[in-house]
Amino acid sequence: MASRYTIGLDYGTNSVRALIARVADGEEIATSVCEYRHGDHGVIGDPNDPNLARQHPQDYLDGTEHAIRNAIATARKRDEFEVDSVVGIGVDTTGSTPLPVDRGGAPLAFSEEFAGNAAALAWLWKDHTAVAEAEEITAAARESHPEYLKKYGGAYSSEWYWSKILHCARQEPVVSRAAYTWLEIAEWIPAQLCGTTYPDHIKRSICAAGHKAMFHPDWGGYPDPFFLGALHPDLARVRRTLPTTCHSVRQLAGHLSPSWARRTELSVGIPVTVGALDAHLGGVGAGIRPGVMVKTIGTSTCDVLVRPAGEPVPEIPGLCGIVPDSIVPGTTGLEAGQSAVGDVFNWFVNYMKPGGDQLGSHSVLTNRAAELTPGSSGLLALDWLNGNRSILVDPRLTGMIIGLNLHTRPEEIYRALIEATAFGARVIMERMLEYRIPVEEIVTCGGIANKNPLLMQIYADVLNRPLKVSRSEQTAALGSAIAAAVAAGPQAGGRQDFSSAIEAMTGTQKREYHPSPGHVETYDRLYHLYKAAHDAFGGVTPNADFSRTMKALAEIRTQTRTSNRPQNRE
Amino acid sequence: MASRYTIGLDYGTNSVRALIARVADGEEIATSVCEYRHGDHGVIGDPNDPNLARQHPQDYLDGTEHAIRNAIATARKRDEFEVDSVVGIGVDTTGSTPLPVDRGGAPLAFSEEFAGNAAALAWLWKDHTAVAEAEEITAAARESHPEYLKKYGGAYSSEWYWSKILHCARQEPVVSRAAYTWLEIAEWIPAQLCGTTYPDHIKRSICAAGHKAMFHPDWGGYPDPFFLGALHPDLARVRRTLPTTCHSVRQLAGHLSPSWARRTELSVGIPVTVGALDAHLGGVGAGIRPGVMVKTIGTSTCDVLVRPAGEPVPEIPGLCGIVPDSIVPGTTGLEAGQSAVGDVFNWFVNYMKPGGDQLGSHSVLTNRAAELTPGSSGLLALDWLNGNRSILVDPRLTGMIIGLNLHTRPEEIYRALIEATAFGARVIMERMLEYRIPVEEIVTCGGIANKNPLLMQIYADVLNRPLKVSRSEQTAALGSAIAAAVAAGPQAGGRQDFSSAIEAMTGTQKREYHPSPGHVETYDRLYHLYKAAHDAFGGVTPNADFSRTMKALAEIRTQTRTSNRPQNRE
Repeated sequence: MASRYTIGLDYGTNSVRALIARVADGEEIATSVCEYRHGDHGVIGDPNDPNLARQHPQDYLDGTEHAIRNAIATARKRDEFEVDSVVGIGVDTTGSTPLPVDRGGAPLAFSEEFAGNAAALAWLWKDHTAVAEAEEITAAARESHPEYLKKYGGAYSSEWYWSKILHCARQEPVVSRAAYTWLEIAEWIPAQLCGTTYPDHIKRSICAAGHKAMFHPDWGGYPDPFFLGALHPDLARVRRTLPTTCHSVRQLAGHLSPSWARRTELSVGIPVTVGALDAHLGGVGAGIRPGVMVKTIGTSTCDVLVRPAGEPVPEIPGLCGIVPDSIVPGTTGLEAGQSAVGDVFNWFVNYMKPGGDQLGSHSVLTNRAAELTPGSSGLLALDWLNGNRSILVDPRLTGMIIGLNLHTRPEEIYRALIEATAFGARVIMERMLEYRIPVEEIVTCGGIANKNPLLMQIYADVLNRPLKVSRSEQTAALGSAIAAAVAAGPQAGGRQDFSSAIEAMTGTQKREYHPSPGHVETYDRLYHLYKAAHDAFGGVTPNADFSRTMKALAEIRTQTRTSNRPQNRE
Repeated sequence: MASRYTIGLDYGTNSVRALIARVADGEEIATSVCEYRHGDHGVIGDPNDPNLARQHPQDYLDGTEHAIRNAIATARKRDEFEVDSVVGIGVDTTGSTPLPVDRGGAPLAFSEEFAGNAAALAWLWKDHTAVAEAEEITAAARESHPEYLKKYGGAYSSEWYWSKILHCARQEPVVSRAAYTWLEIAEWIPAQLCGTTYPDHIKRSICAAGHKAMFHPDWGGYPDPFFLGALHPDLARVRRTLPTTCHSVRQLAGHLSPSWARRTELSVGIPVTVGALDAHLGGVGAGIRPGVMVKTIGTSTCDVLVRPAGEPVPEIPGLCGIVPDSIVPGTTGLEAGQSAVGDVFNWFVNYMKPGGDQLGSHSVLTNRAAELTPGSSGLLALDWLNGNRSILVDPRLTGMIIGLNLHTRPEEIYRALIEATAFGARVIMERMLEYRIPVEEIVTCGGIANKNPLLMQIYADVLNRPLKVSRSEQTAALGSAIAAAVAAGPQAGGRQDFSSAIEAMTGTQKREYHPSPGHVETYDRLYHLYKAAHDAFGGVTPNADFSRTMKALAEIRTQTRTSNRPQNRE
């Protein structure tokens, strides 16, 4: 029998990727990326409000067509490939990225009335306009439904579904009233591919709903309409449009519509899975299983783990969501994350533009930072330039740098920023371990995991753990393709279940990063200084003693420089 | 009678300036600057040790000759000027900048044996290699002579005389043993001009000794030889070379030697005053009198005040020295300072080189920073990139920036750094007021006071005081010329005393900076956040609550942006 393939569609912050993977072994025979056309690389901002980040839904549709067609064109260069050997489509997206639609399911952004109104666009995951509303929802839940918060680490985020809808209701009532309901793009896009337009017919994603919209079986699904209505009547109205059941990627959103089959050249009627969030399907593409933590390290970082179904998972303060079936159907998904990682380095390079025009690239800064030893700069940073997701769940926190002197160089700050994100990663891991979630193996993926050995080595040193790297560089798209293979099922040349699909279709690279003992010790000392600042500025400890912090950094710096001096002078 | 003139020689960090001033009214008829030739603009560093900063004494001599000859050449363009109408020379220098000399008075740096040995050079004021020794001296004094510390704000600095000599004794014993004594360059240079070489004949400066070398009449002059000997035998040996009396700028170092008269074209035998520190004679050139605080704002800032002789001055924690006759003979001098101000901005421009090659100049950053409103960046910085002189007296403290986000721009950081130095200035002023030292008027001088209206306005807003600017842009050199006029005396066409000389020869500019009420209030809120961080990281308060700091900055930012929005949208 000829090889079978599936397509994974991965809708990122700036572009959509189509990946064609072989069901037999996960080989990625073709991939194509189409950048969104609107805004700044797909992100529509507001110069007066740095918190605003939106996307135009037309970009998703146009990008889908181009990415799939280009991927097919590439795949066709292989003799073995034929378009009708593609047996399914899986979809992952950013999230929470909710989109307001009218009663017929059309995005308000497509209507003439709301053209140019940013509230009618998709509210991108990193939109932070709803900070006040997130606090309001958190306060209301603390009062009447504390159980809602326990699954979300104790605070509801400004990045999530209900915060954004409430902000729209308050600030843009005309858009809010015109919205029949709000769909996550993980729900809207697969429905589009299947020709499902009427909102009540669109399957909601357990991954998006569970991790972002307070959906949980413990309280019968989405939150209590009275709870929502007390926040704003529009929320109660949206609540009434939501179903009692959500769906995992094990379920089908439907089958490819004739019109999308024409647009893409794919076969009519092949299965399209329900969508899920990119980092969750990235976990699948990186080979997640109980005991393995998958870290997707990119502009932000998402950490996912799964626990076997039936095993009780404690409520862990600061985790972003503990949701059955959200990552691998049949297991319980746990998610944590850092709201800015690559974005922190991008800020330094793109906003600070340090070092004049010669020095200011990631590669030059990385090369120079790699020549430094841990602790030698005397710097310590807090990585909260986009707030803190885990474990503080507080978008109002900001970045900090301690230890500057008149000789501090850009590469020293660059390295301190990398180290700060590594310390942030360690806080998350330690929180997991504290609650007895085993972390036996760490598999990394994402752009940075593949491109930045310096960062990877620093992470291994700071976490004091070996780090593996996923074989696939497009784990989210591969995870979607795996979901599509399971959706197609063995009869159509797909897969029986997730565990066999993951085992066959994923793997890790030969190259691993191992902690270097000398670095581990220095980073341990720096981590304790980081943790003290983390707890004090993050509001965990109301009384902090910083009288020795700067001197401790200076001592580490002196010791590092002294212990390295003999080598330098040889 | 034809006009009489004096020359003020001002030895700065990078160059020496010669200023020819008219005794009648202080008019500056000629000035010339000669940059030092060694090292990086006169500063000899060590790539392996950012704390090291030395100078070659030959630069002082060569610079003197060139600067005086060029100034005379300029002055000669005026018909009224004749070289023999120059009736005296005054000298001010950086300090503490001690120089090791042999028994004959020759700098060790001039000997073949020590050529290339950095320890044999002059140890520039900002050399911070002696941090450990400063702590050792502080600890020893706390134990056996607490009175020594009370005049120095409770801690002896790494920048000062005995710390540097002790560091040399420990780290470079051969140089230390070869040094018969150590002279401040404020002592060595005037002696050179007078042909005085033998060290025991060189008059020591009360200004340098009193503010930097623990000299005070309360304990009979320099510190107890047993105290010094317990630290290191070499210190006791140097102590034996020191006189019981030091001299103010009211006294003569001597008269211009024939050889220097030939080198400079000046008349043989004109009086040369004892030298003093630049910021102190800068106070004189800016018109200091009781009630006036003179702030010299340059790479660092020095604040000087005088109190009438006989008035008891309390011991003020954190002040760098309270010394009779040190600024204006006949009054008590008080000195405080910030160890980096312009150097902080220079660090940002020269080390960070932000904004690529287009944005990274002081002028572009200043223009952009001027468009921002107080509090709008959400940033708060600690200005300790070169440690903290007043009021914490701790060179191990470092700089800090809080409130970074993914949209923080270079000009926002630049402004936050300016604001941080303004908050540091306010801490000093408030400490003065707390101890009932009246500050009725503030006169500023120095390069930054004359060149940076943005900084001046921010200082006026943060201090909530009007700021005057000295009429002279070379107050230190003018102060030296004033001292020379007093030294020459009325018979030679000079001046009777300092108060009449200061009144006749100094003044302020028409332009003054007045606090703007809206800014004062915002800066008041930011100052309290600064002071909390200052006290916590500076070791004043061992228990600090930072749980609200980042949110408070975000609130100020939001309020500032909201209150400015209507204007922007009109």
